[in-house]
Amino acid sequence: MRVYHLYSGGKDSSLAAWILTRIGYEVKLVTVTFGMLDNWKYAEETARRLGFKHEILKLPRELLERAAEMAVEDGRPGRAIQFIHEKALEALASKPDVERVSDGTRRDDRVPYLDLSKARSLEDRFGGVAYIRPLLGLGYRTINELVGRLFEVEIRESEELEKSDYEVELRHLLRERGIDPLSIFPRKHYQSRVLGWKEEKVKARG
Amino acid sequence: MRVYHLYSGGKDSSLAAWILTRIGYEVKLVTVTFGMLDNWKYAEETARRLGFKHEILKLPRELLERAAEMAVEDGRPGRAIQFIHEKALEALASKPDVERVSDGTRRDDRVPYLDLSKARSLEDRFGGVAYIRPLLGLGYRTINELVGRLFEVEIRESEELEKSDYEVELRHLLRERGIDPLSIFPRKHYQSRVLGWKEEKVKARG
Repeated sequence: MRVYHLYSGGKDSSLAAWILTRIGYEVKLVTVTFGMLDNWKYAEETARRLGFKHEILKLPRELLERAAEMAVEDGRPGRAIQFIHEKALEALASKPDVERVSDGTRRDDRVPYLDLSKARSLEDRFGGVAYIRPLLGLGYRTINELVGRLFEVEIRESEELEKSDYEVELRHLLRERGIDPLSIFPRKHYQSRVLGWKEEKVKARG
Repeated sequence: MRVYHLYSGGKDSSLAAWILTRIGYEVKLVTVTFGMLDNWKYAEETARRLGFKHEILKLPRELLERAAEMAVEDGRPGRAIQFIHEKALEALASKPDVERVSDGTRRDDRVPYLDLSKARSLEDRFGGVAYIRPLLGLGYRTINELVGRLFEVEIRESEELEKSDYEVELRHLLRERGIDPLSIFPRKHYQSRVLGWKEEKVKARG
């Protein structure tokens, strides 16, 4: 029962990966890159520390460019992040042999989030792939409680944190085009990166 | 980390209980009764077979009567089931010492289901209780896959199955009032009851 899990190295996608192993799945972590930066390596490093298999999924640069246009048009990043996430899920689900895809999206996040019809559409369009979201029924209290038990976490403002989510390359592309990312992304936006297990005895396969 | 989990003895609430134990919670199963029938005993029996602690939660008969009125008014059971489920969650969340409540509601079910604002309202109204739904991010393929690995399940039409969900007492009350439950509940409505673990080596605490 292998599942391909979209992974940024943050606390949500790390927690979701751990839950998947706990309920019997063989988890392969997948980090998206558009090939502009090598920030996928932070997720790779965290995956290694947590003991998960990891690979990268390269998406066409064109998608990042379309996302950047959306972000500029809207003056905020929501639609762009949602767009990239949907394309990442589709790219993953369309790979041969992939029967299950998953992510760390959670109940209290506005984006990225697939509503019921989008989730079903993803499953139907890609030959009955199962889309699994272990955190969708968990509120922030529960997520904080579990993350606090499991992981050493570093929390910083997005601009400073070395991590592997879509935002980093999106900000980079905006900068390349002479647009200040701070005009689009909220100024105070804390993000997390998992550094490792809190206790040695807690293991991915525990 | 104790969680009070609404439990019918069916496959969904059993699977959700198992997931909760797998991610570190001490699970106490709670079956609702209105005191009309003793059908809660089926959930108690399944809980015993699975090795979970179990208790019953008695709700006022008046709530069942209000639910019956809704069902008759609508000619279908959805709103009544939703009403009972919300009242059950509230009754559980309002108990002293209860910090976490959970249930087996899933992505593909129409009712019972608390949307985001109702879920947050439940948490806020009851002193920051956490509401956990382990199955909310799982589609039917994933649920069937996990249930198939874990449990011996009996599937029958609702009218025949000995189980402990709200429907049984609701049907009973309708019958008492001279209303044929089949005029309200769909004729072919299969429900499940878990009989035990599929393999002895799979344990609640495994």
